[in-house]
Amino acid sequence: MSDKATVTACLIIIGNEVLSGRTEDANLAFLGRQLNELGIRLAEARVIADDKAAIAEAVNQCRRGFDYVFTTGGIGPTHDDITSAAIAEAFGVSLERSAEALALLDRQYRRQDQNEARLKMADIPAGATLVENAVSKAPGYQIENVFVMAGVPKIMRAMFDGFKHRLKGGETVLSETVTAFITEGVMAGKLAAVQARHRPVEIGSYPFVRDGKLGVSLVLRHTDAGRIEKAAADVRAMLGDLGAEPAKDLDG
Amino acid sequence: MSDKATVTACLIIIGNEVLSGRTEDANLAFLGRQLNELGIRLAEARVIADDKAAIAEAVNQCRRGFDYVFTTGGIGPTHDDITSAAIAEAFGVSLERSAEALALLDRQYRRQDQNEARLKMADIPAGATLVENAVSKAPGYQIENVFVMAGVPKIMRAMFDGFKHRLKGGETVLSETVTAFITEGVMAGKLAAVQARHRPVEIGSYPFVRDGKLGVSLVLRHTDAGRIEKAAADVRAMLGDLGAEPAKDLDG
Repeated sequence: MSDKATVTACLIIIGNEVLSGRTEDANLAFLGRQLNELGIRLAEARVIADDKAAIAEAVNQCRRGFDYVFTTGGIGPTHDDITSAAIAEAFGVSLERSAEALALLDRQYRRQDQNEARLKMADIPAGATLVENAVSKAPGYQIENVFVMAGVPKIMRAMFDGFKHRLKGGETVLSETVTAFITEGVMAGKLAAVQARHRPVEIGSYPFVRDGKLGVSLVLRHTDAGRIEKAAADVRAMLGDLGAEPAKDLDG
Repeated sequence: MSDKATVTACLIIIGNEVLSGRTEDANLAFLGRQLNELGIRLAEARVIADDKAAIAEAVNQCRRGFDYVFTTGGIGPTHDDITSAAIAEAFGVSLERSAEALALLDRQYRRQDQNEARLKMADIPAGATLVENAVSKAPGYQIENVFVMAGVPKIMRAMFDGFKHRLKGGETVLSETVTAFITEGVMAGKLAAVQARHRPVEIGSYPFVRDGKLGVSLVLRHTDAGRIEKAAADVRAMLGDLGAEPAKDLDG
């Protein structure tokens, strides 16, 4: 499936609070599903600290390695919001106060509530194109193939909705999940044979424990629904031969 | 706080199912908190695909950049479990069937239930030291500064408990959280001044929305409880001056 037509993306999650275990990230799963619908494969994600050099290095590594890069976090008004400075450094450009971003902030805050910290949210790397934020107005932005978003999930989603029409995907990857109560070890050999018979379909095996019983979800992915259906029939026959009890897919 | 005495770690989460948004990772937050208690800072995490070359490359980048590397996922019996082959490639060693691991698997499965797929879980990179798995017996392992664990959270936690005595941390980083209903933009300038007065204490600002009200959690981190307490008093005074309504910390 990883042919040349595959469009890839990387997500960079910026935030000490995620690494310390204080906050659980909610943006990766959302982005993975949304990109999949657009025919873009989220091929990697990184969680990095609020450290300017680390952010700039990760952005520069990833923007060369993937078609699209998305960042979340660190674009608010406080002293620990350093993403924009890091992005500017990564691209070798300056941070400039954007008149367009200022106008957006002016609509959100009364003139007397404006302050230097809030105005920092209008400092955008030179050459970037703004991304609308329908929730709290302070914008995200795009610079080349890098999209910079807020970390708060509600705002991140609003920003994604604001620019997703700019993304160019490949073929959409379809999936089907076959779930049964059986242990991986019992069926792994036969599953490998099914995979070998349906080589371009990617079959992933994800074990789980439910009500104290071991089970497995087998996820089949390809761009062609017909190929998935043929492989899924083969998987179901294999599980039937082994006497596995079918189960509902709860996650997929 | 990022002095030379800081012991750092990187987590590599291996799994297409996390990148596709099918499964939400539950290991990062657990590991971040556990390492913090041991005086080790989780400085980065990566989520990568079930791709041998990608895994080997990430392991080689990270084991040179951090004191410890942890991996989760891809050590089961199915065809898509390729972590051990990738680790062997990264270290330039061969995969060898471990007599010690075989003995563990023999205790778990009756002889007639043993099969080649299960035996694959006894194929360990040469030079690795096994890590016990109290849940399902198939072991994890340590090779140099890299610890290889299962992805299923219950098993991952059992493995971590099995080797955490081998980890050598620095000073434990303590934290205190001050939470209030106030917007970041209103207090960001004054917060920056507090941060400047308490330079070695790391102050992170994490906005939230609760019951339709905007709030912020300010997390203060340092190894010295006295320094944290002084900075926290300064933060509380600043919030009081601004008339912010104190709030309960729900996450921290």
